[in-house]
Amino acid sequence: MKPTRTSPRDPPLILAFGAHPDDIEFGCGGVIARETLAGNAAHFVVCSRGEAGTHGSPAQRSTEAKRSAARLGATLEFLDLGGDACIEVRRAHVVKLAGLIRRVRAPIVLAPTPVENQHPDHTALGRMVREAARLARYGGVQALRRWPAHAIDQLLFYAITVEAEPVGVPPVLIDVSAPRIHRAWREAMAAHASQARTRHYLELQEARARVQGQRSGKTLAIALYPNDPLVFSSLTALGRAARHF
Amino acid sequence: MKPTRTSPRDPPLILAFGAHPDDIEFGCGGVIARETLAGNAAHFVVCSRGEAGTHGSPAQRSTEAKRSAARLGATLEFLDLGGDACIEVRRAHVVKLAGLIRRVRAPIVLAPTPVENQHPDHTALGRMVREAARLARYGGVQALRRWPAHAIDQLLFYAITVEAEPVGVPPVLIDVSAPRIHRAWREAMAAHASQARTRHYLELQEARARVQGQRSGKTLAIALYPNDPLVFSSLTALGRAARHF
Amino acid sequence: MKPTRTSPRDPPLILAFGAHPDDIEFGCGGVIARETLAGNAAHFVVCSRGEAGTHGSPAQRSTEAKRSAARLGATLEFLDLGGDACIEVRRAHVVKLAGLIRRVRAPIVLAPTPVENQHPDHTALGRMVREAARLARYGGVQALRRWPAHAIDQLLFYAITVEAEPVGVPPVLIDVSAPRIHRAWREAMAAHASQARTRHYLELQEARARVQGQRSGKTLAIALYPNDPLVFSSLTALGRAARHF
Amino acid sequence: MKPTRTSPRDPPLILAFGAHPDDIEFGCGGVIARETLAGNAAHFVVCSRGEAGTHGSPAQRSTEAKRSAARLGATLEFLDLGGDACIEVRRAHVVKLAGLIRRVRAPIVLAPTPVENQHPDHTALGRMVREAARLARYGGVQALRRWPAHAIDQLLFYAITVEAEPVGVPPVLIDVSAPRIHRAWREAMAAHASQARTRHYLELQEARARVQGQRSGKTLAIALYPNDPLVFSSLTALGRAARHF
Amino acid sequence: MKPTRTSPRDPPLILAFGAHPDDIEFGCGGVIARETLAGNAAHFVVCSRGEAGTHGSPAQRSTEAKRSAARLGATLEFLDLGGDACIEVRRAHVVKLAGLIRRVRAPIVLAPTPVENQHPDHTALGRMVREAARLARYGGVQALRRWPAHAIDQLLFYAITVEAEPVGVPPVLIDVSAPRIHRAWREAMAAHASQARTRHYLELQEARARVQGQRSGKTLAIALYPNDPLVFSSLTALGRAARHF
Amino acid sequence: MKPTRTSPRDPPLILAFGAHPDDIEFGCGGVIARETLAGNAAHFVVCSRGEAGTHGSPAQRSTEAKRSAARLGATLEFLDLGGDACIEVRRAHVVKLAGLIRRVRAPIVLAPTPVENQHPDHTALGRMVREAARLARYGGVQALRRWPAHAIDQLLFYAITVEAEPVGVPPVLIDVSAPRIHRAWREAMAAHASQARTRHYLELQEARARVQGQRSGKTLAIALYPNDPLVFSSLTALGRAARHF
Repeated sequence: MKPTRTSPRDPPLILAFGAHPDDIEFGCGGVIARETLAGNAAHFVVCSRGEAGTHGSPAQRSTEAKRSAARLGATLEFLDLGGDACIEVRRAHVVKLAGLIRRVRAPIVLAPTPVENQHPDHTALGRMVREAARLARYGGVQALRRWPAHAIDQLLFYAITVEAEPVGVPPVLIDVSAPRIHRAWREAMAAHASQARTRHYLELQEARARVQGQRSGKTLAIALYPNDPLVFSSLTALGRAARHF
Repeated sequence: MKPTRTSPRDPPLILAFGAHPDDIEFGCGGVIARETLAGNAAHFVVCSRGEAGTHGSPAQRSTEAKRSAARLGATLEFLDLGGDACIEVRRAHVVKLAGLIRRVRAPIVLAPTPVENQHPDHTALGRMVREAARLARYGGVQALRRWPAHAIDQLLFYAITVEAEPVGVPPVLIDVSAPRIHRAWREAMAAHASQARTRHYLELQEARARVQGQRSGKTLAIALYPNDPLVFSSLTALGRAARHF
Repeated sequence: MKPTRTSPRDPPLILAFGAHPDDIEFGCGGVIARETLAGNAAHFVVCSRGEAGTHGSPAQRSTEAKRSAARLGATLEFLDLGGDACIEVRRAHVVKLAGLIRRVRAPIVLAPTPVENQHPDHTALGRMVREAARLARYGGVQALRRWPAHAIDQLLFYAITVEAEPVGVPPVLIDVSAPRIHRAWREAMAAHASQARTRHYLELQEARARVQGQRSGKTLAIALYPNDPLVFSSLTALGRAARHF
Repeated sequence: MKPTRTSPRDPPLILAFGAHPDDIEFGCGGVIARETLAGNAAHFVVCSRGEAGTHGSPAQRSTEAKRSAARLGATLEFLDLGGDACIEVRRAHVVKLAGLIRRVRAPIVLAPTPVENQHPDHTALGRMVREAARLARYGGVQALRRWPAHAIDQLLFYAITVEAEPVGVPPVLIDVSAPRIHRAWREAMAAHASQARTRHYLELQEARARVQGQRSGKTLAIALYPNDPLVFSSLTALGRAARHF
Repeated sequence: MKPTRTSPRDPPLILAFGAHPDDIEFGCGGVIARETLAGNAAHFVVCSRGEAGTHGSPAQRSTEAKRSAARLGATLEFLDLGGDACIEVRRAHVVKLAGLIRRVRAPIVLAPTPVENQHPDHTALGRMVREAARLARYGGVQALRRWPAHAIDQLLFYAITVEAEPVGVPPVLIDVSAPRIHRAWREAMAAHASQARTRHYLELQEARARVQGQRSGKTLAIALYPNDPLVFSSLTALGRAARHF
Repeated sequence: MKPTRTSPRDPPLILAFGAHPDDIEFGCGGVIARETLAGNAAHFVVCSRGEAGTHGSPAQRSTEAKRSAARLGATLEFLDLGGDACIEVRRAHVVKLAGLIRRVRAPIVLAPTPVENQHPDHTALGRMVREAARLARYGGVQALRRWPAHAIDQLLFYAITVEAEPVGVPPVLIDVSAPRIHRAWREAMAAHASQARTRHYLELQEARARVQGQRSGKTLAIALYPNDPLVFSSLTALGRAARHF
């Protein structure tokens, strides 16, 4: 796998935020693999070391996260927002996240859905990334003066569990059926080995992707939830919708 | 305006259904203009002659519809589903509509939203077109044996009034800001001259397009509601979302 | 498999309605297997012969439906409601269905969800079974005088596709993880052999059951949607909810 | 009334959280009475002394709460989360609540609904109990090391007002029609005597229970809102649904 | 009670539609009483004779309906739409209803909510009255040429059961606390004596009105659901909202 | 324009809260103009100086806000809640806002909608004003002892963008078509001259008002979202609903 390297002048396509070391991989790892395998760069920001989890020390979890990101061809950094199970919606955190968005300058931002009935770190991070994407493009925010304002193109949410899927919001489906995409995704999830529950989670994610794939005539697809309406200049850009069986 | 002519072998890009002579123009005429001006063909199916309206005879209404379609570079035919204010959801109508979808073979189908609290002809037609798009691809329907099965790519709904907009369903926005698109749309709406209320309607539609345009950094945009989730093979196909102000 | 035989005096536990020969098996076959394997009887009412499908003659489809029901230990009858792809909501059909509910006298009735954006036969049947369950317990309906009124205990909807799942309505999940339940379900689905698409459907249903199972700590679970709030006399009857991961 | 006493080894069936001294009684007192009268223990955690209320001193309110809990056969403790009208969603509070859930080890937890448009203390407490129930079962939370992890069976929300009822979420209804249950509930509500508005509230709660009862063929029923889908191993466990009139 | 008599030149304030002989009284009888006691005329249109009910012959039911309407000071007529339990959505029925709306010319129209999960006659009638109110103001409908077009001011829906209340739609609440209003309403409901279930229904309606009353600082209030947004020329017309407790 | 002056004894009709210097004008300035032109007083509370905006210094923004309020005939004060882009939901802020509500004693309170997907300052302020309106009428809140409790009549939300409109909640529409109302509103918006984006915003607001006006047979109308159900003592108070075209 040879993803195109990015230079400081050349921002990655994707900036993905995760609350815990394995969230990005489990929630949308296949989408990442699809883009990096096509030569588009991705950068991960992991906002805890999973220190509240039942299994795996913070050190182990961090190592696993790095390996997993490497398998997906993504770069990774950690960001401290108070620690696992302790991420609260704080304006100071939002400013940190906005600074990061300005620094990385990716057009596409991925974050966990801000749906309430799931791990509260996910909800809090999803909300804060949305607020940060807004702050990142306001010119007058003193605390962000260090970087020029940056307006992203798309904020897309990923859901790690069924409960985290926004009710009544139709997703866009990203085709991840290609075997080498599937393989990269599986291996990235499996890289989180300390997690006794990983096998279980891995199967849940594959079953979810299979459901989304089957409904759209593919083998595997991942659902993402756009924060804003999509804008097109022609109907020809819409492609083929998921067919209903 | 020189839209590319289609031959019988070369199906149009768009097949648009309207319950009344002016519905397509008022609901999504700008989208039609945008595509025909780019050389994509469009075909209109108008399912009544507006005979229940307060103003304009059926003959006048038909003439206006033809002129308006011509202004948009679209072809037009009438289909009888029981008459204005009398369109009921009937399986026999669905079969007629499915036959038409098979005959025309356009990849993109436009219809009024099936939302309940609007003119009941719109609701009934929206529902029946959805059912027809499904029947059109089933191989075993005896009544449709005359044409080979046809699976459309996209079913998109347009809303003629605020009430007809589906609640909680995010639209896709189609940019119709270009002056010659805007002009074609205005003139197509104005072609429905018998309608005393036309001026009024025309302003409503422009104000609605202005709201959708402003929210997405354009001058004018028209909201369409996809029946099924959109499927993409890469995030790069999503373009730039509507930004929030 | 030895399901307890029912006598005319002894109504089955379950009366399941399907619009097409394979709907019950694909939508909730695992639930049926679970009950019949425990000795509870089930009766299927199939409301078309699948004559609009792309593959399989009506005769083949009927034979497959009988074999599949037999594999699940269920009895089966066909009911004519106008034919495949032609089931409309008609009061005369509702009366037929209500008569059947009175005749069979099962406490639990299963039907497809009445959600709009799916095969219209499913929507129509789901609505009509709901109306029929109501008529079945009204004393004064002349057309139903032949059988005494019958009030069912539960009307539960099953969804054959993702689109058919009611938005925002939490399901009850029925555990179908036991290998012999799983085997009976698979074989019942596979009995619909004429359907080229069966393999595909079968995988979709298993992936859906895997998602529902994984979220609740089981291997496989099927989601059913109660028409009415559940009533309990003690909190101890609620058991263990699906845990969120 | 002789509820079964619990020993430290024998956790109560129910752990109920209230933001103010009378919330549990008014929101779900009948359900508590139903269980304690059947010999199941219940423990109340009241998170303020009602010190912002128009009537009644904190001391009076505390005494009333104790008497009311005693009437219901429940034990009670107070928990300080910042004071009446001052309960904010704070991770430190969540940890406190999670510790309490681990200490008490009840399988069933009751809390106010986390719906927004009601007394903000209710919203905040409902959200925090949900988060706490999650933390309580994570093995690695340092601040909770004192008690072993505990996974609850059910988190059920109660609504004190019409506004607090979650929109579109079907409740489970608990039958509280038995005269001695009704009497215990009434007397527990009446025990909050300092509240000039009590009479009023009491009537509101009885009217709400009467509505839920009438719709399900009972005299009185209380609606509870499960946080997670219910999981059953057989349809026979569902009992009889609320019938519609 | 001395309601102001209306002459043919002087249309009543209210035109209320009911599917069965007791629907109007049970769903919104208090609102009717409130207006007729203030001298505003009301006219009832009852669309069946209750011939499918468990108790009461059509003749008895008709007599009771007349007595009940008289008690409320309303005039009454019957309209045949196919019979009890047989009301289907038909364009021919809509035309009949629209004709009636034109003939009566009341500014305010009341009808059962068009919510799906209730007695199907209610759903069908609610939908058809909505369509009829629209047809009534279109100038060109041939079948309605006999009467001049009429645009109503308000279409308000009433709900006879909890299930019939539209989900997520805030009602307007009409205060019916005054003892003589309450008395008239009770007696009108009680006039439907043949119905064994009447006592039960009566209590359900009073409990529902008590809940709506209590939440808004009144004794009794009835919830109505406007079909369209209310338009005001000043905020001072809004009065006092329901306060939340 | 000569709005009636209020004395300390004579509270204004309206108390309007805005997060930024131009929010009230853009969100509901026409409604304010309508009332002040009729002689009803209005008071604005602006909760930041717009210091995070891309254009305009805090000093300029403050001056513009004062001029704009003056043009609308409203008085104005600033309230510090942490600064532009830094308004968090804090109980201390809620107490401040409640104190202000008690001090001003207006029956009608206006605030931004608490919808999530918009500028987070708007969401936070909308939520806090709702909580403050509640606290303002509780007798026992120590921190508010300085002023007597005050129960408002109406809490109405205004939306500054399409995204801020609550999904599925029908608005009340206030007619602002009169030319002098329109002129006052336009000029008040234009008074925020430092904002490069003002022209753009101004057009967005006018287009939104035109859409709401057109749907209700007016030229211009502004949508407000009541927090609580409206209560009326007669149907005659409802006036004429928005007609659907």
